[in-house]
Amino acid sequence: MINSTNLLNDLNTIRSKSPLIHNITNYVVMNNSANALLSIGASPVMAHSVHEVKEMTSIASSLVINIGTLSEPWVDAMILAIETANKNQIPVILDPVGAGATSYRTQVCLRIIQNYKISVIRGNASEIMALNNENNKTKGVDSIATSEAALEAAKSLTYQSGAIVVISGATDYITNGTKVTEVKNGTSMMAKVTGMGCTASAITGAFAAVNPNFFESCTHAMAIMGISGELASKKANGPGTLQLHFLDTLYNLTETEILETLIAS
Amino acid sequence: MINSTNLLNDLNTIRSKSPLIHNITNYVVMNNSANALLSIGASPVMAHSVHEVKEMTSIASSLVINIGTLSEPWVDAMILAIETANKNQIPVILDPVGAGATSYRTQVCLRIIQNYKISVIRGNASEIMALNNENNKTKGVDSIATSEAALEAAKSLTYQSGAIVVISGATDYITNGTKVTEVKNGTSMMAKVTGMGCTASAITGAFAAVNPNFFESCTHAMAIMGISGELASKKANGPGTLQLHFLDTLYNLTETEILETLIAS
Amino acid sequence: MINSTNLLNDLNTIRSKSPLIHNITNYVVMNNSANALLSIGASPVMAHSVHEVKEMTSIASSLVINIGTLSEPWVDAMILAIETANKNQIPVILDPVGAGATSYRTQVCLRIIQNYKISVIRGNASEIMALNNENNKTKGVDSIATSEAALEAAKSLTYQSGAIVVISGATDYITNGTKVTEVKNGTSMMAKVTGMGCTASAITGAFAAVNPNFFESCTHAMAIMGISGELASKKANGPGTLQLHFLDTLYNLTETEILETLIAS
Repeated sequence: MINSTNLLNDLNTIRSKSPLIHNITNYVVMNNSANALLSIGASPVMAHSVHEVKEMTSIASSLVINIGTLSEPWVDAMILAIETANKNQIPVILDPVGAGATSYRTQVCLRIIQNYKISVIRGNASEIMALNNENNKTKGVDSIATSEAALEAAKSLTYQSGAIVVISGATDYITNGTKVTEVKNGTSMMAKVTGMGCTASAITGAFAAVNPNFFESCTHAMAIMGISGELASKKANGPGTLQLHFLDTLYNLTETEILETLIAS
Repeated sequence: MINSTNLLNDLNTIRSKSPLIHNITNYVVMNNSANALLSIGASPVMAHSVHEVKEMTSIASSLVINIGTLSEPWVDAMILAIETANKNQIPVILDPVGAGATSYRTQVCLRIIQNYKISVIRGNASEIMALNNENNKTKGVDSIATSEAALEAAKSLTYQSGAIVVISGATDYITNGTKVTEVKNGTSMMAKVTGMGCTASAITGAFAAVNPNFFESCTHAMAIMGISGELASKKANGPGTLQLHFLDTLYNLTETEILETLIAS
Repeated sequence: MINSTNLLNDLNTIRSKSPLIHNITNYVVMNNSANALLSIGASPVMAHSVHEVKEMTSIASSLVINIGTLSEPWVDAMILAIETANKNQIPVILDPVGAGATSYRTQVCLRIIQNYKISVIRGNASEIMALNNENNKTKGVDSIATSEAALEAAKSLTYQSGAIVVISGATDYITNGTKVTEVKNGTSMMAKVTGMGCTASAITGAFAAVNPNFFESCTHAMAIMGISGELASKKANGPGTLQLHFLDTLYNLTETEILETLIAS
């Protein structure tokens, strides 16, 4: 269940307070993530050098870590930023892009999850399953797992990590290990725009920055993603125009549109 | 000559099988390349760390190497990925962005061509000439060479490299050293969108993944690029909107549109 | 005051000569910057390896340095490129993205300004203030400073650096320390598209490449940015579509549109 008053309240807080979201994310989606955060009213910053992440994270309201194009210097910076976030009680969102596709990605994620406090892990079904069982195989960055198996993995992962776990897909699942909320908004064409999942993680960072009940703020983030994608798809002729209408929709989204479009349970 | 039945067959195979295309490409175009591959129905992945490229390439159906923003760690990863592709008989597409503009770019390309098996080299006229004669000078990443001189260079390069060579331009030339196919579709405005050539290389990777007759699959890739650009330009008011309509067109392209638009010989 | 004949003359020179602009810029905006330069008629190139920046800068007509996603190898390459530009009397534009947000960013900028000849520094109010007084704090990459205080800082910075200083905002200020030109074109929605400031720096590079009176060429660049943003916003429904219409407008901009829209003093 989503409490729509709380959802609107979070959205309005993002728009009025414009929280600073520190992203250490992949090269492919940096532009999209920054634009989505600006469109929803947050203030994005990207910084990935060990010479500055401590300072940058410490002035941010949340930290979004995305492993989509990993390399050693970036892992070092991610760890330093997460340590800083943990010390300053700043929420950390982890997006395990392609976990399971290579052991490097899986191992970096497990190292992060096992050693640091992560507030939210958001991935697709295959990625969540790979983190729960590292022998699980992923094909690149696209999901091939079933949602039932993934939900069991997600619940298990909440216990191992202490994080809220979000599975994105046709239906999004948000779980704290006991409760599960489902968000059914969206459109299948969103999977044809690169980085829509990464954008969901960035937007989750914005909601986590204003609402420390992460189970709730994750649910709100996924609802806003799904609603915006769904409304945008009505104006789009394909993945190219969908991406722009998505940003326009995030920017213009009204309370009425949210209340009329939301499908969650 | 293009056999349109084979072209449609390749496109349908990409759409139904969604081959995984591993891209080690430049920062400028990663987002475009990923989106173009998703729009045509393929599954893109970007990974550039020596810690994971062996694993990633080995699960991919083709490898696209693009030197547009080169540095040492990336060259190391490219070499490792190409070695893996060669060992596993996975096709390798090389996009020599800016070869001739600096000796570093030219030398990295020659090192790759002389030591590894490359299936396809796709560049603009200046780049192809620079690879054939390393004293040839390029102005940045834009072509200043004539197509006749470039075609001679391309034929010579096929003998040195064993690769199919593709020259992009107002007319695209695909050659195996003896045969030449020309694709005349497209629009000059495509040159005003950054990374359209890089997108052509990514799309070539998708076709090479489903059709091991690389002379044919390159021709199909260039035809689909040109047709999509040409159809998209009818809806575009400039390079900004062209980019989106191009993705929408790739996504929606029908057999009828292809057959009615194709100009090749 | 802007002399509109000189402005049109510069724009026509960019369109006819297509100067090569070497950008060492941040990951988030590379695509936007390249597309904006192509749309205005310039020829962008990105290169950031110490193995090639000397060669690349030496064939370029201007060098744009943007510190938005800094790390050590990039700083090394920036310094080498700036040295090359200084030796060859090629104009250098510095965009101090996020100066003041971390001491690393501020220190790298100060090192550049104090040791090399910079033609233009373009930033938002907070960044310019941070460079003038390194104890000045910035929130991420968005400006929180007032324009009056920033203009005083800008004037002071011209004396320390010898550069023309440009402050972007609702009103853009261009100063050489004594004269100030104000450009009032634009739309507030431009601040909701990531990298619009970075695009302004890239466009400034294009104008500096064709007009060595940098006070004048900066003014022209900011006028074209503001006019294009303003005209584009009339067709846009939000930041997503604004970005595309901005590129289309840059590409199609006519003398009549410029003369009818320009607001400067």
